[in-house]
Amino acid sequence: MKNLRRAALDAHKKYKGKLSVISKVPLKSKRAMSLFYTPGVAEPCKEIFRKPADAYKYTSLGNTIAVVTDGSAVLGLGNIGSLAGLPVMEGKCALFKEFGGVDAVPICLNTQDVDEIVSVVRAIAPGFGGINLEDISAPRCFEIEEKLIKALDVPVFHDDQHGTAIVCLAGLINALKVVGKVASRVEIVMSGAGAAGIAIAKLLLKYGFKNICMVDSRGTIYAGRPGLNKYKKEIAKVTNKKKRKGGLDVVLDGADIFIGVSRPNIATRGMIRSMADKAIVFAMSNPDPEISVKDAKAGGATIIATGRSDYPNKINNVLVFRGIFIGALEARAKKITDKMKLSAAKALAGLIKKPSANRIIPGVFDKGVADRVAKAVKKNI
Amino acid sequence: MKNLRRAALDAHKKYKGKLSVISKVPLKSKRAMSLFYTPGVAEPCKEIFRKPADAYKYTSLGNTIAVVTDGSAVLGLGNIGSLAGLPVMEGKCALFKEFGGVDAVPICLNTQDVDEIVSVVRAIAPGFGGINLEDISAPRCFEIEEKLIKALDVPVFHDDQHGTAIVCLAGLINALKVVGKVASRVEIVMSGAGAAGIAIAKLLLKYGFKNICMVDSRGTIYAGRPGLNKYKKEIAKVTNKKKRKGGLDVVLDGADIFIGVSRPNIATRGMIRSMADKAIVFAMSNPDPEISVKDAKAGGATIIATGRSDYPNKINNVLVFRGIFIGALEARAKKITDKMKLSAAKALAGLIKKPSANRIIPGVFDKGVADRVAKAVKKNI
Repeated sequence: MKNLRRAALDAHKKYKGKLSVISKVPLKSKRAMSLFYTPGVAEPCKEIFRKPADAYKYTSLGNTIAVVTDGSAVLGLGNIGSLAGLPVMEGKCALFKEFGGVDAVPICLNTQDVDEIVSVVRAIAPGFGGINLEDISAPRCFEIEEKLIKALDVPVFHDDQHGTAIVCLAGLINALKVVGKVASRVEIVMSGAGAAGIAIAKLLLKYGFKNICMVDSRGTIYAGRPGLNKYKKEIAKVTNKKKRKGGLDVVLDGADIFIGVSRPNIATRGMIRSMADKAIVFAMSNPDPEISVKDAKAGGATIIATGRSDYPNKINNVLVFRGIFIGALEARAKKITDKMKLSAAKALAGLIKKPSANRIIPGVFDKGVADRVAKAVKKNI
Repeated sequence: MKNLRRAALDAHKKYKGKLSVISKVPLKSKRAMSLFYTPGVAEPCKEIFRKPADAYKYTSLGNTIAVVTDGSAVLGLGNIGSLAGLPVMEGKCALFKEFGGVDAVPICLNTQDVDEIVSVVRAIAPGFGGINLEDISAPRCFEIEEKLIKALDVPVFHDDQHGTAIVCLAGLINALKVVGKVASRVEIVMSGAGAAGIAIAKLLLKYGFKNICMVDSRGTIYAGRPGLNKYKKEIAKVTNKKKRKGGLDVVLDGADIFIGVSRPNIATRGMIRSMADKAIVFAMSNPDPEISVKDAKAGGATIIATGRSDYPNKINNVLVFRGIFIGALEARAKKITDKMKLSAAKALAGLIKKPSANRIIPGVFDKGVADRVAKAVKKNI
């Protein structure tokens, strides 16, 4: 890790950040200046003033999104603030462009107040065709997203929630094919009830999974458990219907699928061994999974997925967020609906013609991923 | 004009706006992904968390500015709102890059409330190394700029004020050389007391001009005139010391210099004829000047400058704003001071080795303008 640390710092220093804002138009002649700047630029202004939707015709609006963070939950680093989160935001924007052709601008907020965030994003919204929320801690992220979706008529998407949920569902669709099980009948145990956990649970239920039991740091979540926040209360109504109590060790016993979006090294070989036959383990905590690939294998898991690049089956939002936004922007969708999310997951899963234990999801560098997802999203707005 | 209109609309439509946000770093391999995205990106985040100033080392912050507008005074179009102003903001950002290498992002606000604008810009400030205010109407622009300068420790620059003032001063420095007059002794009449007019008057006084008489739509501005706003009251204290009253026609009689930053066609041949010998006329209203070049000539003006590309002596902010920001960003200046503005004007004037009636200011495409201005600004922070 020490080498990576040095190399990463050197690379960032060498390039002085990752983004550049360039002109798409030639500005080398007086004629070009008079078309794209004064006096010609007044003409598209007048057109947009008459008909605001024409902004999509005459400006970069339709291909430009803001990547907004308050720095409250950056990677696994926690609440380091938005300035310290800027390298991640720049990285995200670079990925949007490199792999999806979307122009993305980092917006680092110096407030972590829910209502202030909502009003600031509303205030800067006119220049953006979409808003990607990034690295905002739960449960604040739910409220911020809800309020912004209501307030704006451009797509608002919290990638840590829905990007993760979509790619997780895509992986599960193929994993089930490999082990020959059916969504409606399997039992899922999920460790983690933050932004990603709750979004995954909701999307899996929409898809047709029926039995999910969520576990947070205090054990299983069940209706009536004292001290649940609004969002955990809601999810408690539709999960763990038997109101099982206890920790991971208790509920993993006999489960078909383990999904981890929580903390490193909280599951053991023994727990995996107690799962049902042909167990599926998605240990997605980053960079260190809930259980190492080695231990999950030793516990007898048939399919193992993580967030890591050095093992097969990397569950990575990069596979999703570009396609979601390309599709939504091209279709001028006003919202990202569940239907769009489900179609994205199915399209992503469909890219693997013959799923196998070591290949349930495309790789980050596979060609055509964003296009395929975008097409599916566009068709399903 | 009809052809230009069609051509400008077609050009904007063809390119779908003017800006693109690209990755400066290669992201084509797993290794690159692990350096610039997870897990490597965590390293610069941690460094910046420990030492915020390191953001200048590891991110694009030091070369990135926001071009912020509320759309209240876009070009000569007035209060058309920020969305309709987006083509201008994109154009401005494109110029920043093409002619100055600065990465600039348009921020279109959907509020025109002074305090809201200030708090929104403060809230998004962490991701920007500087703030360029654009096309915000007077007198609100003065208050917004003042408050932001106090609130932020990165350069805040309202180009419509100071860019115009700097390039106007540069032109005057050379114009005086041509006619053989001295700044401290000439009499200036200025039509227009908005953003540009007040900023020009202030900068000219700092430079060493002594006699300025400002005229707005109600006639000359003088101390004690009823109904003056706070900013006109302030400028009245240091201009028009004889408290002359009346319109342009009255005060232009015998004046050495006419500066127009107001409305088209408000000065006449006769007025110019009434000016002192070797009169200097800067008629900068855009696209139609306060008096046509033809009429100013017929009135006997020795030097005529406008904002137009089709005549000599184009007074254009493009000559200034890039250099100001490059210099300020490179020096990590916290403010744009008067000293920096004066040095920019002198540097710009100095680029013309032998000023003549038809060449008092460099052209937009002249090489090295931004560099020269930037160097001067950097030396004088």
